[in-house]
Amino acid sequence: MARVGGRADDELRPIEISRGYNKYAEGSVFIRVGDTHVICTATIEDKVPPFLKGTGQGWVTAEYGMLPRSTQERNQREAARGRQSGRTMEIQRLIGRALRGVVNLDRIGERTITVDCDVIQADGGTRTAAITGGFVAMVDALNYCRLLDSPGETPVVRDWLAATSVGIVEGHKWLDLSYEEDSIAQVDMNVVMTGRREVIEIQGTAEGHPFTQAEMMELFALAEKGILDLIKIQKELLGEVGQYIGRGSVK
Amino acid sequence: MARVGGRADDELRPIEISRGYNKYAEGSVFIRVGDTHVICTATIEDKVPPFLKGTGQGWVTAEYGMLPRSTQERNQREAARGRQSGRTMEIQRLIGRALRGVVNLDRIGERTITVDCDVIQADGGTRTAAITGGFVAMVDALNYCRLLDSPGETPVVRDWLAATSVGIVEGHKWLDLSYEEDSIAQVDMNVVMTGRREVIEIQGTAEGHPFTQAEMMELFALAEKGILDLIKIQKELLGEVGQYIGRGSVK
Amino acid sequence: MARVGGRADDELRPIEISRGYNKYAEGSVFIRVGDTHVICTATIEDKVPPFLKGTGQGWVTAEYGMLPRSTQERNQREAARGRQSGRTMEIQRLIGRALRGVVNLDRIGERTITVDCDVIQADGGTRTAAITGGFVAMVDALNYCRLLDSPGETPVVRDWLAATSVGIVEGHKWLDLSYEEDSIAQVDMNVVMTGRREVIEIQGTAEGHPFTQAEMMELFALAEKGILDLIKIQKELLGEVGQYIGRGSVK
Amino acid sequence: MARVGGRADDELRPIEISRGYNKYAEGSVFIRVGDTHVICTATIEDKVPPFLKGTGQGWVTAEYGMLPRSTQERNQREAARGRQSGRTMEIQRLIGRALRGVVNLDRIGERTITVDCDVIQADGGTRTAAITGGFVAMVDALNYCRLLDSPGETPVVRDWLAATSVGIVEGHKWLDLSYEEDSIAQVDMNVVMTGRREVIEIQGTAEGHPFTQAEMMELFALAEKGILDLIKIQKELLGEVGQYIGRGSVK
Amino acid sequence: MARVGGRADDELRPIEISRGYNKYAEGSVFIRVGDTHVICTATIEDKVPPFLKGTGQGWVTAEYGMLPRSTQERNQREAARGRQSGRTMEIQRLIGRALRGVVNLDRIGERTITVDCDVIQADGGTRTAAITGGFVAMVDALNYCRLLDSPGETPVVRDWLAATSVGIVEGHKWLDLSYEEDSIAQVDMNVVMTGRREVIEIQGTAEGHPFTQAEMMELFALAEKGILDLIKIQKELLGEVGQYIGRGSVK
Amino acid sequence: MARVGGRADDELRPIEISRGYNKYAEGSVFIRVGDTHVICTATIEDKVPPFLKGTGQGWVTAEYGMLPRSTQERNQREAARGRQSGRTMEIQRLIGRALRGVVNLDRIGERTITVDCDVIQADGGTRTAAITGGFVAMVDALNYCRLLDSPGETPVVRDWLAATSVGIVEGHKWLDLSYEEDSIAQVDMNVVMTGRREVIEIQGTAEGHPFTQAEMMELFALAEKGILDLIKIQKELLGEVGQYIGRGSVK
Repeated sequence: MARVGGRADDELRPIEISRGYNKYAEGSVFIRVGDTHVICTATIEDKVPPFLKGTGQGWVTAEYGMLPRSTQERNQREAARGRQSGRTMEIQRLIGRALRGVVNLDRIGERTITVDCDVIQADGGTRTAAITGGFVAMVDALNYCRLLDSPGETPVVRDWLAATSVGIVEGHKWLDLSYEEDSIAQVDMNVVMTGRREVIEIQGTAEGHPFTQAEMMELFALAEKGILDLIKIQKELLGEVGQYIGRGSVK
Repeated sequence: MARVGGRADDELRPIEISRGYNKYAEGSVFIRVGDTHVICTATIEDKVPPFLKGTGQGWVTAEYGMLPRSTQERNQREAARGRQSGRTMEIQRLIGRALRGVVNLDRIGERTITVDCDVIQADGGTRTAAITGGFVAMVDALNYCRLLDSPGETPVVRDWLAATSVGIVEGHKWLDLSYEEDSIAQVDMNVVMTGRREVIEIQGTAEGHPFTQAEMMELFALAEKGILDLIKIQKELLGEVGQYIGRGSVK
Repeated sequence: MARVGGRADDELRPIEISRGYNKYAEGSVFIRVGDTHVICTATIEDKVPPFLKGTGQGWVTAEYGMLPRSTQERNQREAARGRQSGRTMEIQRLIGRALRGVVNLDRIGERTITVDCDVIQADGGTRTAAITGGFVAMVDALNYCRLLDSPGETPVVRDWLAATSVGIVEGHKWLDLSYEEDSIAQVDMNVVMTGRREVIEIQGTAEGHPFTQAEMMELFALAEKGILDLIKIQKELLGEVGQYIGRGSVK
Repeated sequence: MARVGGRADDELRPIEISRGYNKYAEGSVFIRVGDTHVICTATIEDKVPPFLKGTGQGWVTAEYGMLPRSTQERNQREAARGRQSGRTMEIQRLIGRALRGVVNLDRIGERTITVDCDVIQADGGTRTAAITGGFVAMVDALNYCRLLDSPGETPVVRDWLAATSVGIVEGHKWLDLSYEEDSIAQVDMNVVMTGRREVIEIQGTAEGHPFTQAEMMELFALAEKGILDLIKIQKELLGEVGQYIGRGSVK
Repeated sequence: MARVGGRADDELRPIEISRGYNKYAEGSVFIRVGDTHVICTATIEDKVPPFLKGTGQGWVTAEYGMLPRSTQERNQREAARGRQSGRTMEIQRLIGRALRGVVNLDRIGERTITVDCDVIQADGGTRTAAITGGFVAMVDALNYCRLLDSPGETPVVRDWLAATSVGIVEGHKWLDLSYEEDSIAQVDMNVVMTGRREVIEIQGTAEGHPFTQAEMMELFALAEKGILDLIKIQKELLGEVGQYIGRGSVK
Repeated sequence: MARVGGRADDELRPIEISRGYNKYAEGSVFIRVGDTHVICTATIEDKVPPFLKGTGQGWVTAEYGMLPRSTQERNQREAARGRQSGRTMEIQRLIGRALRGVVNLDRIGERTITVDCDVIQADGGTRTAAITGGFVAMVDALNYCRLLDSPGETPVVRDWLAATSVGIVEGHKWLDLSYEEDSIAQVDMNVVMTGRREVIEIQGTAEGHPFTQAEMMELFALAEKGILDLIKIQKELLGEVGQYIGRGSVK
């Protein structure tokens, strides 16, 4: 079984990231990973959740949504249904944890960065595209608010960050699954990794086919390769701004 | 007081409408009216609301939403808040009525056309942009499903349809208000009109300054001018497909 | 086609407005427009919405509801259903805007006037009856709280206010539609107007039959006639209190 | 301590019950018990809850609501708040149980009687007024639908039904408490009773002052007296229709 | 008709109350009344509802829930359904009132005691088991927080408190109904009573069979017997702690 | 830094699993992992979600909840708050996926197994305890309904299943974290594994400290050890019933 368009097993789909997509947000990108299109906006506000008031520490959070017709069949609008689905909640919690994982919250003061990730068109890998694009939007927002270039010793953003999915489809181990591939995958794994190749989050799920440790390691290596490719794209895109991003030093 | 960029009183902002913006929807456009950007997708499904079951008649409805950071300040996500605001409900009801107003529901069979209008960036006039763009998405969807070109005597889509806003700002009567203009307008009016210059909906509201009948008529004339300009753009855009659109014959 | 009971095309249904209907509210009326019966209570509280705190300015808002059996078929209770319908939201926003349109919010201090309009029996025109009756309840409440008779130059209530519906039924243009008439109307228009014959709000909707500018103007004239009749009734009813109502001078 | 207006300890407030208050409902009354005003409408529909489908048996249920300004301070509208309070739920369950208690559900077929009780003005005893008035509305609805006068052996409505409150206020045992009395009562008891002086429901609550069995019995006797007075009023009111009401024979 | 297991008409099911069931709560018990199993935890927090702020007075409240499979058929989880049922609300209001009825709120300062009653297995009488067990958990929590043994003249807990149900089943008057018995009972009564045999709450409901005053008194006597048995068990269980519980003196 | 009670790095807390804890559920256990206590009930019903109707295939799903005072501070009851938190949704989706991963859905017919996991006391690892205990409850339920011992070639339950957590705390890699340990962990990983040592789900999250691939593998080995210990306990507990559980053969 070959991949659509002759894509190699370890090949990402074409990536396009447009910065400054929204004229109001402190940072924003439109990220396209193949036919998966996500708008990410980063908003910085001078407020924190109650549990952080008075600590001098900030917060990073994310929200996720899909337009009703971002999918093959139209989905009910969550605002009309009156609540977010479990899937939505799970994904936005993951994005928030991932971004928080590379930000030094002590350095941004009592501010909240909210990264909204809205899926315009979904073709697999929306959550990982949201993390990869959301990272750029967040960095741009921090830069815009002059929170990046302070002379402190520890960097505000500790490391680069990107995410991708890998999976096993009819025995093949593939990088960056499209929806069609994902829907028949026996194993599905999402990996969030930093520029220093450290893991922020790994989630692997067997869909009817439990996997061995050896398979897990192979998938992991594939994800690592893809993430390093994504971070290369982020570095080119951010240019000068990238100099303020740390190299993984932990507080 | 002059308009931003030297715009004339009766001049629309630059309009761009891209068709086929979404690969799944039967019809879709991305409409830009100045800095107001709206994605409209039209979905056709083989089902109708309960009150139409067994009547052989179809339905047209609309839903409206704003991305949280489509506005200057971030708004709470309606899906997270657990309900749609009164403003959202009012707008989506208006869009639905407007589109329904030019469709011959008897001719589409027991099908529902749902036009989703999602505001990516808001700079005034989102509801009228949604109607103008949503009309094109709906026509494209009907065409795609081969519901337009049937040889029946009465056309499925009875007439062209567009909408715009007009208002009085510091005594000036202006067409197609931007957010900045709208927020200081004394009178605000939205008009939905057909190609034959018949009204589908008119909503005029005094914001602190009640208006006379004479003022109402002047505003109406301004709106009419703008709508005819918009319909001209729609006609160029739809090209051949436009031949299936009626000239206003009422059932 | 003739109207029920031989009513003339430009004739209102019998109106009855009883003041002081509720012993707790600062102002209250029971308004009967034919078989449409609405209780309007006006409550004045020493608080304002967050966006007005510290501005010295007040607010006027309205809420609308229907008893479950105010209609021919019983409707589900909105409190039991867990949310207000889009129709309810749209109507209460209209009533609030209309009343706000004649009140000088700077003159009432940081107070909120809430006008509750509850439909006991619905036979068409509930929203316009609510505005016509709600105006009287609001004036009575302002008078009760001694907010009307202050010696300031600009009146607190700038002008008289009433509303009615007009429509086209089988080609006839009729004033003050009953439910039966409304349900077969091709065009339906609600007009909210002041004593000086200025418009606060106009909403005209084509129900399957787009209307021309000429038809719109005829309907408007019919509404104007009805509203002036209603304001005459309000003036008789309010008697002395009416002297504090302005003649439309704009701030 | 004497009661307002010199009312005797065992004296009801003035009662007025107007039948046929609503032109749509199968049965309806406006009941006034002093300054407590409640509209009760009874709707009969040809449907039953799922657990009764196919059993040939009907159902009686009630819903209760208060207009926002039925009370001294304005209360938030439950429809706007998005849910009914615990108090509302508790009261409507009580009214439903009480009415169900005198109806032979086997005799009405697979129909549901919904009695809506909406409080226009509240001055204590709204739930008991709702039961007393709701009974009349229900009987009228059954009569209107020709469900009362069938020649079966067991009556559809087994007995008369009314309710009142009693309480201990500063040591005095009083019948039919007003809001002012109720708010300082040490003990508060609601009794629902039939024409044969049998109890359908008794609810007695100590408000800070537990009561003895002897006090309970005294209160009960007071309630019984009041309820028999209320049933007398119901009998006069219903006239001929009353002949179809049973004398308490149990199925 | 005899009771299951030859239980006497006035015999309680076997009672087991385990204190200190939960390692976090200030007070907690696991109460078993036959096959009805309820976990009661009492939490004491330094906060009060808004209406008590600044009064120096505390509050006692209760919440009630059933595990989805505490019943014969699985019930939908209320958290998933998005709201508590009317039954749940009614029960938790009853438990709260009952516990509040024996606590001197002036003596506990601005603190709230929340008694959570979660039904693990339901076999009739869950609300009365919750009151009987919740009382012990509350006393333990007050003792743990050193709020019981203060040297004030009026006791914090004014009296012992327990509850049970009684009913008429096929003419028999029975104490402490199991679910099977309850489901066929013609009359169902819950009584909450203190150690001095004073009533805090009585709720009697006819299920198809109205009851006479004589029957009511017989049921009441049966309940009184059962409650005194329950209080005896509470006294043995609480041992030394019981000395701080008052003998019913009213504030 | 040493573990509480001198526990070894690779040592589970004491485990107790009581079967048949609930008299109504088809299968039920009370599982204690140290001070984490969870009730798991498995309900089998003859219905499936809409997307499976007519496929002959069954479904396995899970729901998760925490009693309000299962935690150190009392949490708001989700039923009262009106919705489940993102954390709850995420956990119940994980439990459902895990259990589904070892069930041959084709073999159980159009039935749904719902495993309710209610946390009575939480001290870390509630989701993994729920999976370990829920598996036993599910097997017992299948056995009770005679769905396990059918003579088909492919087993209904394909393999044993258990889960545990591992983490890095101040540089130490520890198995089965308690709440205290978890709250200061730099890395937290949950692993769900079968008897054949295949992975059903792995979720590793960096809490401020990204982890290397080498650390990930060490943690994984630790989890594997713990899970095999847990499965040993399950095998002893289930005894004869265990013979019907497959050895991992994939459909």
